[in-house]
Amino acid sequence: MEISLILAATAAIAFAMMQGMDVKRIQITDPRIAEIGGYIHSGAMAYLGRQYKVLTIFVALLFIVLTITPGLGLTTALAFVLGALFSVIAGFCGMKAATSANMRTAQAAGQGPTEAFRAAFSGGSVMGLMVVGLGALGVGIIYLLNPGNLSVLTGFSLGASSIALFCRVGGGIYTKAADVGADLVGKVEAGIPEDDPRNPAVIADNVGDNVGDVAGMGSDLFESYVGCIVSALLLAAMSGGAEILPYILGLVAAGILSSILGILVVKMGKARDAQATLNLGTYLSAVLLVIAAFFLGWLLPEREGLLAFAAVVSGITAGLLIGRLTEAYTSDRYKPVQEIAASCKTGAATNILSGLSYGMLSTVWPILVLAGATLASYYFCGILGIALAALGMLATVGMVISVDAYGPVADNAGGIAEMSGQPDSVREITDQLDSVGNTTAAIGKGFSIGSAALTALALFASYALAVKLDTINILDPRVMAGLLIGGMLSFLFSALTISSVSRAANKMIDEVRRQFREAPGIMAGTQKPDYARCVDISTQAAIREMILPGVVAIASPVAVGFFLGKEALAGLLAGATVTGVLMAVMMANAGGAWDNAKKYIEGGYSGGKGSESHKAAVIGDTVGDPLKDTAGPSINILIKLMSMVALVFAPLFL
Amino acid sequence: MEISLILAATAAIAFAMMQGMDVKRIQITDPRIAEIGGYIHSGAMAYLGRQYKVLTIFVALLFIVLTITPGLGLTTALAFVLGALFSVIAGFCGMKAATSANMRTAQAAGQGPTEAFRAAFSGGSVMGLMVVGLGALGVGIIYLLNPGNLSVLTGFSLGASSIALFCRVGGGIYTKAADVGADLVGKVEAGIPEDDPRNPAVIADNVGDNVGDVAGMGSDLFESYVGCIVSALLLAAMSGGAEILPYILGLVAAGILSSILGILVVKMGKARDAQATLNLGTYLSAVLLVIAAFFLGWLLPEREGLLAFAAVVSGITAGLLIGRLTEAYTSDRYKPVQEIAASCKTGAATNILSGLSYGMLSTVWPILVLAGATLASYYFCGILGIALAALGMLATVGMVISVDAYGPVADNAGGIAEMSGQPDSVREITDQLDSVGNTTAAIGKGFSIGSAALTALALFASYALAVKLDTINILDPRVMAGLLIGGMLSFLFSALTISSVSRAANKMIDEVRRQFREAPGIMAGTQKPDYARCVDISTQAAIREMILPGVVAIASPVAVGFFLGKEALAGLLAGATVTGVLMAVMMANAGGAWDNAKKYIEGGYSGGKGSESHKAAVIGDTVGDPLKDTAGPSINILIKLMSMVALVFAPLFL
Repeated sequence: MEISLILAATAAIAFAMMQGMDVKRIQITDPRIAEIGGYIHSGAMAYLGRQYKVLTIFVALLFIVLTITPGLGLTTALAFVLGALFSVIAGFCGMKAATSANMRTAQAAGQGPTEAFRAAFSGGSVMGLMVVGLGALGVGIIYLLNPGNLSVLTGFSLGASSIALFCRVGGGIYTKAADVGADLVGKVEAGIPEDDPRNPAVIADNVGDNVGDVAGMGSDLFESYVGCIVSALLLAAMSGGAEILPYILGLVAAGILSSILGILVVKMGKARDAQATLNLGTYLSAVLLVIAAFFLGWLLPEREGLLAFAAVVSGITAGLLIGRLTEAYTSDRYKPVQEIAASCKTGAATNILSGLSYGMLSTVWPILVLAGATLASYYFCGILGIALAALGMLATVGMVISVDAYGPVADNAGGIAEMSGQPDSVREITDQLDSVGNTTAAIGKGFSIGSAALTALALFASYALAVKLDTINILDPRVMAGLLIGGMLSFLFSALTISSVSRAANKMIDEVRRQFREAPGIMAGTQKPDYARCVDISTQAAIREMILPGVVAIASPVAVGFFLGKEALAGLLAGATVTGVLMAVMMANAGGAWDNAKKYIEGGYSGGKGSESHKAAVIGDTVGDPLKDTAGPSINILIKLMSMVALVFAPLFL
Repeated sequence: MEISLILAATAAIAFAMMQGMDVKRIQITDPRIAEIGGYIHSGAMAYLGRQYKVLTIFVALLFIVLTITPGLGLTTALAFVLGALFSVIAGFCGMKAATSANMRTAQAAGQGPTEAFRAAFSGGSVMGLMVVGLGALGVGIIYLLNPGNLSVLTGFSLGASSIALFCRVGGGIYTKAADVGADLVGKVEAGIPEDDPRNPAVIADNVGDNVGDVAGMGSDLFESYVGCIVSALLLAAMSGGAEILPYILGLVAAGILSSILGILVVKMGKARDAQATLNLGTYLSAVLLVIAAFFLGWLLPEREGLLAFAAVVSGITAGLLIGRLTEAYTSDRYKPVQEIAASCKTGAATNILSGLSYGMLSTVWPILVLAGATLASYYFCGILGIALAALGMLATVGMVISVDAYGPVADNAGGIAEMSGQPDSVREITDQLDSVGNTTAAIGKGFSIGSAALTALALFASYALAVKLDTINILDPRVMAGLLIGGMLSFLFSALTISSVSRAANKMIDEVRRQFREAPGIMAGTQKPDYARCVDISTQAAIREMILPGVVAIASPVAVGFFLGKEALAGLLAGATVTGVLMAVMMANAGGAWDNAKKYIEGGYSGGKGSESHKAAVIGDTVGDPLKDTAGPSINILIKLMSMVALVFAPLFL
């Protein structure tokens, strides 16, 4: 079955290349589009280049540590490097394709909406396909080369996790520093519209969409994907259910093929059915996976096959439910966003309170769904069931990422159309494309949060098996102390990432103000702003600020395990997972709701743009930005990464 | 030893009465002070009256439930009623004394600062002494009447917890609805100063200080106090260490006497050394308790005596440390508040982000201290050690509450001085008294949060013993599901209380606006505003809004225990405690920091009052108000109450 997996993975990579070439085929005839698009492309590449330098040092250091750690050794260390490398390659190709698709979508919008839609989606799908292709390929190769020694896979997974952390945190800081800087000085102080080429931070803002929403998101899901496959394989092997290994590999392969089919279906869609097409593709790949999971059950004895199928389905169901719940709390078609918008009438304070309290409230149902999925999947297949449920959510992640990455590509295309002075008709097309896909993206977010939680639980269980803990007893004070410390780490991590964004945004604000002050020709339109300087500020800040949270995430589990023992570390992982999921859901939904409440008001509600309500809504949106795009997603990584670190270094704590 | 306890408790109650009479001795000669003070007094009593009606129904219902629950019965149900009754009496006497001391402090300020200081402190100390007196008396009586059947004590403790929940939540909603309503319309819209008698919500605001900061706080600590004594006794009895029971009772008695001595020392202080005197009293009673804990060790075999002493000291140390840490994050003498004030320069959004991130960051050290205290006290005395550590913090709570209640009395006296048009010299004295005691109050907060966490842990352990769970295994999916649900309940509870405040505040805003609109004579000073209407709105809202959170807090543990089993309920309690402590610390500190950042700016920093920075700071303060005064303190109750409910209903889950 590992051969089928490698074949499916190779097919995904090949298909990604074809999708990339499809996009490249669009000729850019407008020199202004090429110019602006070029700025964004080179800004994104400059960021990646610098990030890779830091990552190289980090990977080299950890490579040495892994090699000399008793119980690990060179094979695991090499697998670690491979995991890091594959994550970087997936991110690099995905970003290259996205920045290439940005300008080509703007160009294609001149010919018609369907051309533009296809360009944007194809560009996004490269990231999706590369993630699943390289993730599955790495697992397949290591599985093939190390028969009977699955623990090497943890090295690969740790590589993926480490890169994910830095990409998510760095990307999140980059994008929000640029966004806040561009908005506060450009839109609020200078009163120029969004994506106005006179705004010096506008290119950095667009680069940010790529490094945060495309590369960061991709590396996040790469980590979840690899982590959940690896934990499923480990749990199966360690709990003696070796006959289920081919089932797991087959499921992953089937997920890849389902994603490819889903993507093909979307590619044939028309722009006027864009939303329906995206939904169709997403649901189709989920349904195909369910069918495959059923038939793959034939690999197992009848009862086991059905039970595994049930666990997978419980994961898929939970993912879909959490997605719908996310939508109910963040879409302006429902009460929460409308009430948050209404609370803007009494000012910013009531808006913040309303958003915070809806954010907290929005954790209730997703947590109940997660608890239900945990209980159900455990009931079906024991602890392995949790990993199978996670796998159910993540097997079709190729499709999910494609839709997720489509959003920022369409958004960027709109920015490029605006900045390059395209006719209104073009901008209308890009706006329309941008507005589509939010519903599908909400489902994607549900999958991403839900799968992070289940993956963390599965990794946690793998850790317990690896350090030979049969019970993790909360009545043991070390476990209790660990729970407290783990919960606290989610808060610390959020605090660090939020304050990083604030610091970086302040630098950006100073720079944009300086340019407006020292070069009055910018506002008059006679002088070009210094885009590169702003890109540079975001890049530097992101690289510098990602280091402390990264060290905290990697060092804390090791330190707690070493000084307080493996029981305390187990408590830490559980505490971090529980509190982390809550914080991640709360921050993502509060941020999303504030964002859409602002848009709802901009759509004419309660005085519309420029009213006092709108000013209050802008404050909420600004508060929500780093919560939903930096701190929240980073916590998703934190909980998986810490479990992964604990699992890899398990031999140290024995 | 139970006789010494009852004697000490009786002494505290007698001393409370003397303190109350001391205050009453001050003659009110100014009829305007009597009038305003009378409004506040009758508003507070009206609120209590209505609250008691609802509480009577609730107590009656739960009395029936407890009586018919298999394994409980009439004795426990009667103990429950006694606990509720004692909590109500303590609250009623404390409130009566506080509202009587408010106006007498304003009156005494005309004679000199020391007279006013003593009046305010004596008024506050009635609450402190009644809490420890009635709490210890109840425990002593039940202990005496039910030899060998300590589980009856859980009924008493549940009574205390239930009342605490409603008083804390209701009081928190009352005070913040009035505060936000008075500030937003009075100060911001109409531009009249704080405590201006033309503001229709001004009396409600002052009543709120009493029902929230005096009665709510008192019932909260009454619950902690009783809960930690009861859990210590239960753990000692259940884990077979019956010879330590007299030690525990003796420690409680010693704590009461230490508090009485501390209060006497403060009473002899002068106003110009007010801060030093309050600190002296607080530290003195702590030191006396440490000495008593050491000599009480002679009741035990030598080694056990020393170990118990060490556990008690670890609790006291943790309480003091958390207090200092709280101060570091909320006083304007330290970096966090100064940086939050600086962030106001770039607007409300950066202020909110800065406060949120410092609030999250401020959890780090308190959690490490708590984890350390848990590990240390367990190391010394096993699971009982955790209860002893909590008892170390709480034994001198009579002193702590006295200082805590002194604050709102001094604050209210200032309000009455302002409203009754006293000369500036009087207002200066009350302002000075109000500014004192914040440091000591921070220590009190540290004790209150730290002891809530340790008490919840001790109750949690008692629950595990009561349902015969030797291990609570996180790898059990029911425990994991419980952890998730418990963590979520802290978020749900915060969401409910915050949105209650918003709803109630909106009603108050509408009413104040209506009065200004329909009676223009109010602003001109020719017509009296309808204070009673505003008092009524806050009262009704508080009573109505306290019900849903109350039902959630009591019903969830029972439902989870019943449907998912005792393991899931154990997980729920652990999850709620860990996440609840984090949320409580975060919200308390963020709110406190925003409050003081605003005051720091009002002190002249960054443009002072009326500047753009100040407007941003006011928004932060308004956001922080319900977090620090409603949601945060209510969570403290939630985690203790849920553990208590689980413990009482333990026979159901066996």
